[in-house]
Amino acid sequence: MFSLDPQLAKDTVLLGRLRLCQLLLMNDSNYPWFILVPERENLRELHELSDTDSLQFLEESTLLARALNKGLQPYKLNIAVLGNVVPQLHVHHIVRYQYDPAWPAPVWGKLPAKPYYSAEISKLKDLLTKLLGRSFTPA
Amino acid sequence: MFSLDPQLAKDTVLLGRLRLCQLLLMNDSNYPWFILVPERENLRELHELSDTDSLQFLEESTLLARALNKGLQPYKLNIAVLGNVVPQLHVHHIVRYQYDPAWPAPVWGKLPAKPYYSAEISKLKDLLTKLLGRSFTPA
Repeated sequence: MFSLDPQLAKDTVLLGRLRLCQLLLMNDSNYPWFILVPERENLRELHELSDTDSLQFLEESTLLARALNKGLQPYKLNIAVLGNVVPQLHVHHIVRYQYDPAWPAPVWGKLPAKPYYSAEISKLKDLLTKLLGRSFTPA
Repeated sequence: MFSLDPQLAKDTVLLGRLRLCQLLLMNDSNYPWFILVPERENLRELHELSDTDSLQFLEESTLLARALNKGLQPYKLNIAVLGNVVPQLHVHHIVRYQYDPAWPAPVWGKLPAKPYYSAEISKLKDLLTKLLGRSFTPA
């Protein structure tokens, strides 16, 4: 049975679910930083998804990217599968601005995480719930 | 008309073409580091691809990932769209090993590039040509 990697569980807040993926918010207010985790067991790489899940993942990643683009007006989106430290397949979707504290470097390992106030999390959750529409079930 | 970003052209070697993308090799022998660039004008983000191109991109990225997995046995693949510095849409596919010089950090900005000898480039090109099969036209 699928269960979220303990390190991911510790570092993030569950915002809700799409058909395939959990949508997590990295608890780091330095950047609007979201993570999609397909609820499938024992996956480490994108190319290990079945053909059906792969298409579903593409749909959810595109939906999230367009929602972030509309709602948060990034200068650039950074989308990445790394997994060098946390092996469970998870895909970063990070909203980047030219004035964010790591710009133009990638965000990983740059700054200590700056946890959100709970009101900020609620606000982001409401925004995503509105932007993602019927495909999304808030947690 | 599509033309490759001058910075990408300077940092990489063209290995060949798939139906949608150019396949580039980053000229940095620290890691086997490949880049897919869809031959479409004025794109910055994955979600700007048309629906047809998006599916084609998924197919080519999956084909490349499986080829790298088979031919170079990564400990982990790192796949990323950043584009904070080079705006033209390009997608990194990086073969990572636990003994590579940046492990477990992401590779960007870690070490100066270490250019390949031309014989090493030929060898990688031959390997990819074999692994990617009929979908790939070597340069």
